[in-house]
Amino acid sequence: MASEKGVTLLDFWVSPFGQRARIALAEKGVQYEYKEQNLVEKSDLLLKSNPVYKKIPVLIHDGKPVCESLVIVQYIDEVWSDKAPLLPSDPYQKAQARFWADYVDKKVFDCGTRLWKLKGEEQEAAKKEMIEILQLLEAQLGDNKYFGGDTFGYVDVAFIPFTSWFYTYETCGNFSIEAVAPKLVKWAKRCMERESVKTLYDPNKVYEFVCYLKKKFGVE
Amino acid sequence: MASEKGVTLLDFWVSPFGQRARIALAEKGVQYEYKEQNLVEKSDLLLKSNPVYKKIPVLIHDGKPVCESLVIVQYIDEVWSDKAPLLPSDPYQKAQARFWADYVDKKVFDCGTRLWKLKGEEQEAAKKEMIEILQLLEAQLGDNKYFGGDTFGYVDVAFIPFTSWFYTYETCGNFSIEAVAPKLVKWAKRCMERESVKTLYDPNKVYEFVCYLKKKFGVE
Repeated sequence: MASEKGVTLLDFWVSPFGQRARIALAEKGVQYEYKEQNLVEKSDLLLKSNPVYKKIPVLIHDGKPVCESLVIVQYIDEVWSDKAPLLPSDPYQKAQARFWADYVDKKVFDCGTRLWKLKGEEQEAAKKEMIEILQLLEAQLGDNKYFGGDTFGYVDVAFIPFTSWFYTYETCGNFSIEAVAPKLVKWAKRCMERESVKTLYDPNKVYEFVCYLKKKFGVE
Repeated sequence: MASEKGVTLLDFWVSPFGQRARIALAEKGVQYEYKEQNLVEKSDLLLKSNPVYKKIPVLIHDGKPVCESLVIVQYIDEVWSDKAPLLPSDPYQKAQARFWADYVDKKVFDCGTRLWKLKGEEQEAAKKEMIEILQLLEAQLGDNKYFGGDTFGYVDVAFIPFTSWFYTYETCGNFSIEAVAPKLVKWAKRCMERESVKTLYDPNKVYEFVCYLKKKFGVE
């Protein structure tokens, strides 16, 4: 096993991107120091570690920072390769996993933000888009146990943190994810049985946080 | 060497994303069938091969489609791994390469489009941002021969196609890239000496194409 010395995660509790890194580290059984970051007054360590985006999560391993959550998850998978492989070894399967993780990355957070931040027609458009995104992901999951097939993998790690945001999306958009994508809800429950995923934040806490953000941004 | 039978690229000549796939295939010496796509009336093959985005490039290998240019380049690197490795083998270096290729992916095309499509203050903002992007990339290149160090690699493949758009950015934004990022211009010339990169389209042709788009979108 590669060195576990000096693994630090700069993170913010509710971030689905940070949660990806936490889940990957837990799957691999890597011990690390968690450093909660103040995103209003950013620490020198964060600014120095991620000068390009100045964002969490940042994984610092043996003093060297790795930024961007999907880059971090792939890095974790490659460094601690002896346990719980996240990406498949077959190049075609690997490409498919990268495609879908990237799809989640490009679509879910952005659409979810529009869903809680906007009103009226714009919000309706975001809700319609979110349903399309979820149904496309549900079709991709099919009757598999995980997106990784029989094993919990890269796309599962990329997507599962957003399920702790589902309650927020449903409440703000006034719709039921179970009604539009029942297999996804079952998949989320299945994932929640894993020790690595149990660390996800309570959906009620996420919703409270979004209510705080809505006040801050002057959204009713 | 893995099978070269049945390699097809669905592409559109001026696309910097398609050019990435072409360069990676050329670096690996892979023979393939190039199928130029009509992006106004999309072919059944394109719609079937990339139902999610309905976009080029798509690499079809042994009947199976791979979509999204950076996913394609990584797939090519993994399937034809015996020649011209594009990603480094060290996990940290690999993470750095993924970070910078992703940075190019997120920033350059989008900012470049605003640069030729917008006017006045918005165009000035895009120009300022483009200069920042280029200078950040120049700092990352430093005095290296390539972004991959001594060897032409993943970030080079991701970024070099945009250099055939530099003339368009300069002309629309009325600034000189050589003045703001001279090392990048030298890097681009160095890359152009490679057989794989010589296939890049003439900057004048790219500019002509953008002028056609400007007319189409009603931009003066």
